[in-house]
Amino acid sequence: MYPKSIQKLIDIFSKFPTVGPRTAARFVFYLMKRDKEEVDELIRAIQDLKKNVKLCQFCFNPFESTPPGYVGELCEICSDKTRDKSLLCIVEKETDLISLEKTKKYQGLYFILGGAISKLRKKDIKKLRIERLKERIKQHPEIKEIIVATNPTTEGEATALYLERVLKTLVAAQGKKITRLGRGLPMGGELEYADEKTLKEALESRK
Amino acid sequence: MYPKSIQKLIDIFSKFPTVGPRTAARFVFYLMKRDKEEVDELIRAIQDLKKNVKLCQFCFNPFESTPPGYVGELCEICSDKTRDKSLLCIVEKETDLISLEKTKKYQGLYFILGGAISKLRKKDIKKLRIERLKERIKQHPEIKEIIVATNPTTEGEATALYLERVLKTLVAAQGKKITRLGRGLPMGGELEYADEKTLKEALESRK
Amino acid sequence: MYPKSIQKLIDIFSKFPTVGPRTAARFVFYLMKRDKEEVDELIRAIQDLKKNVKLCQFCFNPFESTPPGYVGELCEICSDKTRDKSLLCIVEKETDLISLEKTKKYQGLYFILGGAISKLRKKDIKKLRIERLKERIKQHPEIKEIIVATNPTTEGEATALYLERVLKTLVAAQGKKITRLGRGLPMGGELEYADEKTLKEALESRK
Amino acid sequence: MYPKSIQKLIDIFSKFPTVGPRTAARFVFYLMKRDKEEVDELIRAIQDLKKNVKLCQFCFNPFESTPPGYVGELCEICSDKTRDKSLLCIVEKETDLISLEKTKKYQGLYFILGGAISKLRKKDIKKLRIERLKERIKQHPEIKEIIVATNPTTEGEATALYLERVLKTLVAAQGKKITRLGRGLPMGGELEYADEKTLKEALESRK
Repeated sequence: MYPKSIQKLIDIFSKFPTVGPRTAARFVFYLMKRDKEEVDELIRAIQDLKKNVKLCQFCFNPFESTPPGYVGELCEICSDKTRDKSLLCIVEKETDLISLEKTKKYQGLYFILGGAISKLRKKDIKKLRIERLKERIKQHPEIKEIIVATNPTTEGEATALYLERVLKTLVAAQGKKITRLGRGLPMGGELEYADEKTLKEALESRK
Repeated sequence: MYPKSIQKLIDIFSKFPTVGPRTAARFVFYLMKRDKEEVDELIRAIQDLKKNVKLCQFCFNPFESTPPGYVGELCEICSDKTRDKSLLCIVEKETDLISLEKTKKYQGLYFILGGAISKLRKKDIKKLRIERLKERIKQHPEIKEIIVATNPTTEGEATALYLERVLKTLVAAQGKKITRLGRGLPMGGELEYADEKTLKEALESRK
Repeated sequence: MYPKSIQKLIDIFSKFPTVGPRTAARFVFYLMKRDKEEVDELIRAIQDLKKNVKLCQFCFNPFESTPPGYVGELCEICSDKTRDKSLLCIVEKETDLISLEKTKKYQGLYFILGGAISKLRKKDIKKLRIERLKERIKQHPEIKEIIVATNPTTEGEATALYLERVLKTLVAAQGKKITRLGRGLPMGGELEYADEKTLKEALESRK
Repeated sequence: MYPKSIQKLIDIFSKFPTVGPRTAARFVFYLMKRDKEEVDELIRAIQDLKKNVKLCQFCFNPFESTPPGYVGELCEICSDKTRDKSLLCIVEKETDLISLEKTKKYQGLYFILGGAISKLRKKDIKKLRIERLKERIKQHPEIKEIIVATNPTTEGEATALYLERVLKTLVAAQGKKITRLGRGLPMGGELEYADEKTLKEALESRK
């Protein structure tokens, strides 16, 4: 129905997260109405993303290698000497790290796992950076506490249990401890609609 | 538009919580289609509710005065000798008590406050059972911990702060402590969408 | 969990349309807080509904037999001499009649079918007032147009097709015609989200 | 919080229709995980869109100038000799044209107005292709019917009324007529929830 060049771009945008064909079409018509400068700016921004942004060699957090000529391999957090190197917080993805940073409460380091798994299938597990995580823990005896901060969703819980299992001997050998984020009622939540497990933990962690 | 007897009942049902005029009309047409036995059963159930159900003289939890002839004034929880009398959990309303009971985690007593307040206006505060609560605390030195389990909503938080203020001297004098339910990520929650305060508390209460 | 008298009423309210157990519980707690006068008013309103409201012997619209002593069997619409007796509009239920009356556009009579059917199963068809409808049409030669105003939902469409089939010979014999409500875009609708059939009809019925 | 190159692209994506900063961030992380080939394909598709897609000189429908070397200025619909040149359908935007084409019911031509206006402010009106529309109508005496197919939303209705006003003399002089899409209940709609205006029109356009 649409001209080929339009359909092609609709198909590509449709693969973006949360985007269906109808929204993808709106993106394309939006772009068609932009003038050349704006479209060039978008293309340049995409190219810059791929050119300038690297993944941190410690935590896999994306960072920008600026100033030009900077040759470090660590992100701003990992290269910040004031951060507490004895804490390692494992998160599923980049935006979870951002959320925790915004609290200004956490001063340790991170490790971005690259997702969560719902079933313990080999091919799913292989997508996560489990081996890299083990390496980090082995090579950094200064880490004293590993905070497993996966989401309290089904996938996040399964991933946390898996991590606890595979890290157990490693952690025990080095006298480190593994912790989990506290559960409870979130701001705005209501007892009436809370699940039993959340309420149980809210009762236990009362203070 | 509707016949008077229909409109009258629509008006009454429209005052039920969550019910608007359209739903109220559906209730009325639903009742019109029920046969005499079913309608009589409803009327009897409403009458029995008012006749058989009393409010507990300690916690204001509704309870049934059965077996017939039972003259006690306490609900099943308050008259249960195995419950821990040193714990008093203050909830906003009956359904919050039910939610906490379902966890089977809490073995203390309750006090149903009768609502929550958003502003500290005298007439709002008067709707709550604050004076009764003070009496209970004064007359029951065996209470050692008061758990303020209002909802972590704006109203619930305001109510909790108000309670802490009015109970402070009373509680200090008797060596009791006041606690709050733990905050954190609920089951199914996601770090990405959690507010900063919830995340902060989840970090602090990690274990 | 709840006292028996509370649970009983929750069970009854849970059968009301759109009401689940949680909402039913809120209804019960709402009633518990009402004083005796209000509860008596509700009970009286329910009793009056069953006592005062009859179904119209022509169209099955509920109506109130007032003033007391009134012995007619027809609702206000059917007994209104100024209404156009040549038009008969078939609707699924009472609230559809009310919606059409509110437009003040329709001056004919109605017939409340009592529902819609999704499958042509005998026991479903028997729930509808098909035989009564045929009687009305046979006994009222003054009816010239039968407007099938079932909802344009799957069930409503199936019902309309069924009605057209069973009324065909009857209607043809008497020189009556059968019509359907016009299809098209509703107020607030958008071409982009409209289904093809609706758009087709909107194009055909342009004016 | 994000590196500059990431933030820049988040800012650009945030301007896309329906996209907020959170979704924009997900787009950027999605792109970061794509390999070079996929990103190059996206950039090429955006460039091709701007290079290959033109706006039809009659109806402003985007079309692709293929085969290469094709120098026409009309889209596939406008250059299709079998289409009925006596019908001109005015739509707000490209996706509305697509929706109408999908019905396979309409065989005339289109004119894409470029939006809808809620208030008759000069600067809003200037965004629409009103002057171009007048030119088309003047220069094409073969047009006999102008179908104003703006959305039945507040904006679409205001636009339709405005169009009828500015086209009146022009249309009267040439003996053309102006029509509107039919209103009524859409597929899946229900009488109970329909507004009065929609029901009125559904009654009037019954057939």
